[in-house]
Amino acid sequence: MHTTVGIIGAGPSGLLLARLLHRAGIDSVVLEAKDRSYVEQRQRAGILEQTTVDTLRAVGAGERMDREGLIHDGIELRFDGRAHRIDFPELTGGRSVMVYAQTEVVKDLIALQLAEGGPLFFEAQVHSVEQANGDRPTVRYTHEGREQTLTCDYVVGCDGFHGVTGSAIPAAARRTYERTYPYSWLGILAEAPPVYDELIYAHSERGFALASMRSPSVSRLYLQVPNGTDVADWSDERIWDELDARLATRQEPGWKLARGPITAKSVLPMRSHVTEPMRHKRVFLAGDAAHIVPPTGAKGLNLAATDVIVLAEAFTELYKNGSTALLDAYSETCLERVWRAEHFSYFMTTTLHADPEQSAFDTRLQLSQLARIAASPHAATELAHNYVGAPISQDAA
Amino acid sequence: MHTTVGIIGAGPSGLLLARLLHRAGIDSVVLEAKDRSYVEQRQRAGILEQTTVDTLRAVGAGERMDREGLIHDGIELRFDGRAHRIDFPELTGGRSVMVYAQTEVVKDLIALQLAEGGPLFFEAQVHSVEQANGDRPTVRYTHEGREQTLTCDYVVGCDGFHGVTGSAIPAAARRTYERTYPYSWLGILAEAPPVYDELIYAHSERGFALASMRSPSVSRLYLQVPNGTDVADWSDERIWDELDARLATRQEPGWKLARGPITAKSVLPMRSHVTEPMRHKRVFLAGDAAHIVPPTGAKGLNLAATDVIVLAEAFTELYKNGSTALLDAYSETCLERVWRAEHFSYFMTTTLHADPEQSAFDTRLQLSQLARIAASPHAATELAHNYVGAPISQDAA
Repeated sequence: MHTTVGIIGAGPSGLLLARLLHRAGIDSVVLEAKDRSYVEQRQRAGILEQTTVDTLRAVGAGERMDREGLIHDGIELRFDGRAHRIDFPELTGGRSVMVYAQTEVVKDLIALQLAEGGPLFFEAQVHSVEQANGDRPTVRYTHEGREQTLTCDYVVGCDGFHGVTGSAIPAAARRTYERTYPYSWLGILAEAPPVYDELIYAHSERGFALASMRSPSVSRLYLQVPNGTDVADWSDERIWDELDARLATRQEPGWKLARGPITAKSVLPMRSHVTEPMRHKRVFLAGDAAHIVPPTGAKGLNLAATDVIVLAEAFTELYKNGSTALLDAYSETCLERVWRAEHFSYFMTTTLHADPEQSAFDTRLQLSQLARIAASPHAATELAHNYVGAPISQDAA
Repeated sequence: MHTTVGIIGAGPSGLLLARLLHRAGIDSVVLEAKDRSYVEQRQRAGILEQTTVDTLRAVGAGERMDREGLIHDGIELRFDGRAHRIDFPELTGGRSVMVYAQTEVVKDLIALQLAEGGPLFFEAQVHSVEQANGDRPTVRYTHEGREQTLTCDYVVGCDGFHGVTGSAIPAAARRTYERTYPYSWLGILAEAPPVYDELIYAHSERGFALASMRSPSVSRLYLQVPNGTDVADWSDERIWDELDARLATRQEPGWKLARGPITAKSVLPMRSHVTEPMRHKRVFLAGDAAHIVPPTGAKGLNLAATDVIVLAEAFTELYKNGSTALLDAYSETCLERVWRAEHFSYFMTTTLHADPEQSAFDTRLQLSQLARIAASPHAATELAHNYVGAPISQDAA
């Protein structure tokens, strides 16, 4: 089989790229190692920037999102026993974010792709990407028990941090940057109505907590825990008690989360990672295959979306006008935004979490930074702009 | 001898406090361990915030400053081979800073105090501050070979990080916060005209450099060096070569400093330190006696000035209206600004210096932060407001 763009991975970046290419009249084939049900239920992010929302609408995946998604005009910071709201539209000239889970984005994109797109194969296990240096990169994979070969004009690796595409790029041709963090997140899904309208990011001497939501009846909640934590050590009651303790303020002493059945419980590691460049010859990397951010800044899914928006425009330019200029600029174009997001995610992470090694001085610096954000429109504006994200044409804004 | 306010230390904070009290009709005595010449030649800071400038004018110490000081409307950041200017008035609604060396501030304040103020004794070695808990704290010191006793309504320690006043406060009554840094500054004074109009803060893989000035004919220049550096290892030529290398940009490849005789050369440690509270009973701490910042944010002298402005207002309120309200609020009032300055100084220091332990990822985060400041008005505004400092009434602005 031959296709113009071979896409490895049917997460949000691979699926959105396939949709964007389809709309531009460019053939693609999507190969996904897991089955459809697994992909549709993989719990990940839930915050969409305006650019991501606009693009999902543009590819026809906006209908259910606009019906079920929740517009959030701000976040709340809790620290030092008090609460402070960051008002996004006020600070950014009208921008907001949307709460709509990655699982739902993926379901919508899969349904569209199967209805009217090019081939999308689940349980298609890619073994290797070969001849990355040649004119016809070749993907070898197993599907329905048979060895298959897909030749492509270009291959795009949307197969995540542990994906096979990255390994097709010689180590000498790329550089990696990495940081791990001395804590993880314990994340739960609970059938409990959020008692808050917007996400709450809480700094506490007990550790960070994040109160988020998936819908008006489902809460998504996180606790900072030590690396290596076993979920078995965290009973439901212990989790709720700890969340209440970390989210407590002096302003509302009786404030508590609504409790409900916990339907999922898992430990998420925190990592920062960047591979440069994001292209080698005719092989491109997008989303988590090229970069990982800790989830504190809600940037992972949005970076994946902007990568493939840039890439789809570049392929369109090539096949419409014969110019490789945008394609050649892909890596540099994306990496500026990637490093901005890496820095912001690091900033949010290290400002809000309690590093077990940190000194009392470090804690006071965190509280000074948070107090500054609460007191100064300049500091709050900088945070708000980073959080809502910039339009692709205005990375500096 | 008895006085209303006993001031220990004739650096900028002690001298300015004496002047402010004198204008309010409150008696004070200043005791300084060193001789006048030493105090007047001790090289320290050189950047005055608007509040500091206004206060020096108000106490009659503005004449020579206004004649010889240099108004700076910005700073230049150099990183990644490029230069970016931060325009203070544009970003802060018209605020600037003044370059006028601490040595000159001290000379002006000493001359005024000797001409028309209360007693100012040099070479008055304070041994102890006693009865801090009583109504009459007592300072014991040696002057002109004789043991002396000064009883006071209040004692203010303006005697720096290693001062004796701090030790009069029981360890159980205070908490200290501290951070050291894995690098120092090699600072030089050179009889060379600065070839730049404003301070240049340079991030370089070779380490941080700062090009500053004392006057149109005297340069003040700094290089990041390892802790424990011996100035003897740094010949004049090595210093100039290293400065040129770290300050180089791609935009102006031939750019070099003007060289001239180096008249002073010393190594400065970098430390963050805060003592809380800044008061114990009738003993107060101000300036470096209460807090130290690394010099990268140019905050040390300005924090010292704002401490004593707040304190002088509080004493005035007490002796005019009989209210201790402002005096009781002194520590809390100052500490909010102190922690803001501690955070900003830490931010400037860690964004611009090369930590010998830092990873390639950390370096890229620094460059991403600096690129953000260059690209985004929000990030630049936040930096500019922190640099020029807020009026005392608007700590949040």
